[in-house]
Amino acid sequence: MDAFGKLSVSQVNITGGFWKARQDLNRDVTLGSVREQFEKTGRFAAFRFDWREGMPDRPHIFWDSDVAKWLESAAYVLNKNEDEALEAYVDAVVDLIEKNQDENGYFNIYFTVCEPENRFCNRMAHELYCAGHLIEAAVAYYEATGKEKFLKAMCRYADHIEKVFKIDDSAEYSTCGHEEIELALVKLYRCTGEKRYLELSKHFVDIRGTAASKEVRAGENDAYVQDHLPVREQTTAEGHSVRAGYLFSAMADLSREYADEGLFAASQKLFENITQKRMYITGGIGSTAAGEAFTVDYDLPNASAYAETCAAISLYMFAGRMSRIKADSAYADIAERAMYNGIISGISLDGKSFFYENPLEINLFDRKLPQKAKVRFPITQRLEVFGCSCCPPNMTRFIASLGENIYSFSRDTVFVHHYMQSTAEFPLDGKKVTIEQTTDYPNDGKVTFRLTGMKNNRLALRIPGWCRKVALRGSDGNVGFETQAGYAYLTVKEDDVRLEFAMDMQPQWLEASGHVCECAGTAALQRGPVVYCAEAVDNGDELWSLRADICAQVEEYYEPSLGLTALKTEGYKKTDKGSRALYLPAGEGYEPRTIKLIPYYAFANRGESDMRVWLYKY
Amino acid sequence: MDAFGKLSVSQVNITGGFWKARQDLNRDVTLGSVREQFEKTGRFAAFRFDWREGMPDRPHIFWDSDVAKWLESAAYVLNKNEDEALEAYVDAVVDLIEKNQDENGYFNIYFTVCEPENRFCNRMAHELYCAGHLIEAAVAYYEATGKEKFLKAMCRYADHIEKVFKIDDSAEYSTCGHEEIELALVKLYRCTGEKRYLELSKHFVDIRGTAASKEVRAGENDAYVQDHLPVREQTTAEGHSVRAGYLFSAMADLSREYADEGLFAASQKLFENITQKRMYITGGIGSTAAGEAFTVDYDLPNASAYAETCAAISLYMFAGRMSRIKADSAYADIAERAMYNGIISGISLDGKSFFYENPLEINLFDRKLPQKAKVRFPITQRLEVFGCSCCPPNMTRFIASLGENIYSFSRDTVFVHHYMQSTAEFPLDGKKVTIEQTTDYPNDGKVTFRLTGMKNNRLALRIPGWCRKVALRGSDGNVGFETQAGYAYLTVKEDDVRLEFAMDMQPQWLEASGHVCECAGTAALQRGPVVYCAEAVDNGDELWSLRADICAQVEEYYEPSLGLTALKTEGYKKTDKGSRALYLPAGEGYEPRTIKLIPYYAFANRGESDMRVWLYKY
Repeated sequence: MDAFGKLSVSQVNITGGFWKARQDLNRDVTLGSVREQFEKTGRFAAFRFDWREGMPDRPHIFWDSDVAKWLESAAYVLNKNEDEALEAYVDAVVDLIEKNQDENGYFNIYFTVCEPENRFCNRMAHELYCAGHLIEAAVAYYEATGKEKFLKAMCRYADHIEKVFKIDDSAEYSTCGHEEIELALVKLYRCTGEKRYLELSKHFVDIRGTAASKEVRAGENDAYVQDHLPVREQTTAEGHSVRAGYLFSAMADLSREYADEGLFAASQKLFENITQKRMYITGGIGSTAAGEAFTVDYDLPNASAYAETCAAISLYMFAGRMSRIKADSAYADIAERAMYNGIISGISLDGKSFFYENPLEINLFDRKLPQKAKVRFPITQRLEVFGCSCCPPNMTRFIASLGENIYSFSRDTVFVHHYMQSTAEFPLDGKKVTIEQTTDYPNDGKVTFRLTGMKNNRLALRIPGWCRKVALRGSDGNVGFETQAGYAYLTVKEDDVRLEFAMDMQPQWLEASGHVCECAGTAALQRGPVVYCAEAVDNGDELWSLRADICAQVEEYYEPSLGLTALKTEGYKKTDKGSRALYLPAGEGYEPRTIKLIPYYAFANRGESDMRVWLYKY
Repeated sequence: MDAFGKLSVSQVNITGGFWKARQDLNRDVTLGSVREQFEKTGRFAAFRFDWREGMPDRPHIFWDSDVAKWLESAAYVLNKNEDEALEAYVDAVVDLIEKNQDENGYFNIYFTVCEPENRFCNRMAHELYCAGHLIEAAVAYYEATGKEKFLKAMCRYADHIEKVFKIDDSAEYSTCGHEEIELALVKLYRCTGEKRYLELSKHFVDIRGTAASKEVRAGENDAYVQDHLPVREQTTAEGHSVRAGYLFSAMADLSREYADEGLFAASQKLFENITQKRMYITGGIGSTAAGEAFTVDYDLPNASAYAETCAAISLYMFAGRMSRIKADSAYADIAERAMYNGIISGISLDGKSFFYENPLEINLFDRKLPQKAKVRFPITQRLEVFGCSCCPPNMTRFIASLGENIYSFSRDTVFVHHYMQSTAEFPLDGKKVTIEQTTDYPNDGKVTFRLTGMKNNRLALRIPGWCRKVALRGSDGNVGFETQAGYAYLTVKEDDVRLEFAMDMQPQWLEASGHVCECAGTAALQRGPVVYCAEAVDNGDELWSLRADICAQVEEYYEPSLGLTALKTEGYKKTDKGSRALYLPAGEGYEPRTIKLIPYYAFANRGESDMRVWLYKY
């Protein structure tokens, strides 16, 4: 196993194209919109610690984390943009955090103003989860502004947590019922260099699900919170999918930091279980609303898919970490699948509203039927805020921090995991390296690189799993490369080099494994990393009666109602040709029909409409 | 509209083949088995009227009807078979009925021994429903044995009902919450010639859902019991499907008896709504367990299909009646579809156990999943008795009385609706006619007729809707015929004629209408009237991964585990060819696979197994 370096948000600028537009919208619209919703619901006011019984807006146990993710998002935005008002707003919250922090370092709104007597008593109360998000925010804010107040406050809190959970072992539980602190402590360690934080993270991960933990001794270990087994013995992704994704991310982090082969092997097994048996084609995970959880292998219902936005983000986080341990494109492939599909489907094109759940099918007919009356279906239109509003600020921090996952590096090799118009500047092998990507990816498969300071170093370009053909050209013509585990490796010959990398973006129909009952007989269209879907607004009702002809040509067209390039293809619709018969000879009653497909991430932006990712094949 | 004559059970003998075997099994095994279960559960003992509070086996409001249907079945068996013990058993029950009948003619166990103060107070208490089944039994027993005691008792009861519901209008309701009395009174009229019974039936049907009924005036009219509208204004089959089927049967009866074009038009509309929009390919109706009811057009879920055995029987009853009003093969086609599929799927091949519900898919994987946890699925193995055990004695009377639906006749034409080895003898046009059918239908499409006494009369042979080609030969070669509304008409030239009618039995793949979401992408195999299904016991698990090649040849083979001729065809299975990928290029990963299909009616006879009627197409 390897341990590749990571670039920070500071080192990478996204300068144009698909993600720049989203980062701008995130900065200009979404961040303010989420803040406004959080103000309206009392989440920010709660940091004043002046709530008393009988007052409205009783703080909720996870409100600290909602605001923390917003603060973290603001930090990434401030990392790239001057914004005095925003910075002042964050500073004011940070002041409140410092002001209301206990002498001993403890900080939690709910367990200070609502139930101070119950600190560290209930592992399901998200206490360390909130701490973790505050730590992530503090690290991001320090990196963005150089201001230490927030970071120091969180170091004091982390010290307190270490004392309570590791040194004194005086809390009523050993591990938090919602993982997050584990990966946050790794970030805190990397930011501060304080190894105790890494050790504390390792402590939480190592003790989980073992007889050394209080919960296992009390018989309260549960797959829902991933402590049914010691983490090294887990081979299937179980329980609440966001919890799982955060835990597995921490496992990957720790296996890298400690060069822990066993922990990495466990992480790999879990990654494979998810991505080979429990993941939607959109990168969505956690197929059931019951516990927002994984179920069993190959259980991937489309209409009732939970596929929480945060869960897809957690998979992206896990995959990104794995890609910095082993140079295998499988990891960044999955990160990319989530990025372009099941994550950004969670936000409307206008940047103001959100899906918590991301179904792969909306069938309004079906969900009104008596036999489905008790099936829980996702909502069909995005909302501006949720009671449990974890997803919106997770989206804002995901978008604002995207740059950090584009590259990684070893001593002499720079890995390009993702294609985005961007610039990066960082030291490699004692030299200053700059990389400039110019591209309209994923609309177009061409990426132009300008590399400086890389002479005699290697460049490794991910060849996406969906891509059947790539070409690499330098100023003198084709450039040879060696492919290994999904990366094209080449040695850079000069200190100022231009390369053109071209990926074949031919749309492809995919099928799910034969083990997936819910996708039987169907295919889904993908172009580059983008999965497409059919909406009734473009194709009429009864989307199940469309038939995709997987051999027909697929063409691009501009869909003005979305402001997007979409796809169309000639397929069929089972119209019965006017017959009133309920049962007809097979193969009859089909009529040619143009099928229009839009990117999945853009669904539900034109009013309530049926939608399908998986179309029946002709 | 016409009004064809009906043959009685007495006039037709089923002498061999598919249904003779079932009639024998019914007589030798099923009738005794159902009786034993009804004895064990106290249903027969209840006729002693000696139950008192505190004793076990409290009579249930519908027990009279369970036993009545068994008595009716016994009557049909006695019509064809000498069986002193059986006759004595029936007589003993009849004696109890007469002994415990009220002076005024009233007879009901529950409302005599449990709630005598509540007679005719609660329309949902099945009181007239029980009366109807007792009347049907009495008519059948009189026709079988000539004994009048039961019939006279039921005439007294019918007279009492007429007084209470029509003359005095003193009951607390106007129409029963479970239709049945309506069609029973028509039978009683036909048996006794007493027109008051027909008038009473008409009264119940006419008042239903109108402002003249107490329930409508009280605002209690409800589609569940088909009184949301006056029957002539109903255009869709709504509510409890057995109730609906029985009501529609009575509507057909009455439209025939009164030559009521309006009522017939309503019956036709309802028949079309059911058979063109709300019926399974098996002839099952009532797609949801919620209310055992119809839902909306094209809502035909396979795995959660309710499709109660009694409902398929009620459709068969309705269709049979329609076929005696209008010479259109659509009616007998539907009766046949129900007979060979959704009705007899309700009984095990050994004749001892029953399905109440008849799903078109069993997917054991699916029904264990969290998101399906609240979906109500049918049981997977037949039972010997149910708490609500309407289906078993409905099955026994259906099988024992089958002969009466084979033929009908007008002044000069004999209609052959169904093909079964049988003999019939009846007067036509002043002459004695005999018809002998020799056939192994539906195993074989050849039927040999010997007709006597039919010179110059017409024979009308149904050309089944599924049949693409028929041939008719006499002793001198091909015989010409004229086809009209699905019947082949020919004039019989001699008084002793032999004809050979041959139907092409080539198996056919059918698809459901494009409006049926639950069947999208699939096809079902049918041979003659028999629908086939794939079971895991023959095809391995994950039946959804099988792919039918609708162009491949289908061959017969003998399936020893069932003792039946079954079908096999070369199709495919999506095996992924060992790939661990969850998403693969469309069209890859299929391997040739022989698919074995057994008659649907024979499913679930070899232990618990997945099953599918609708297979995905290649």
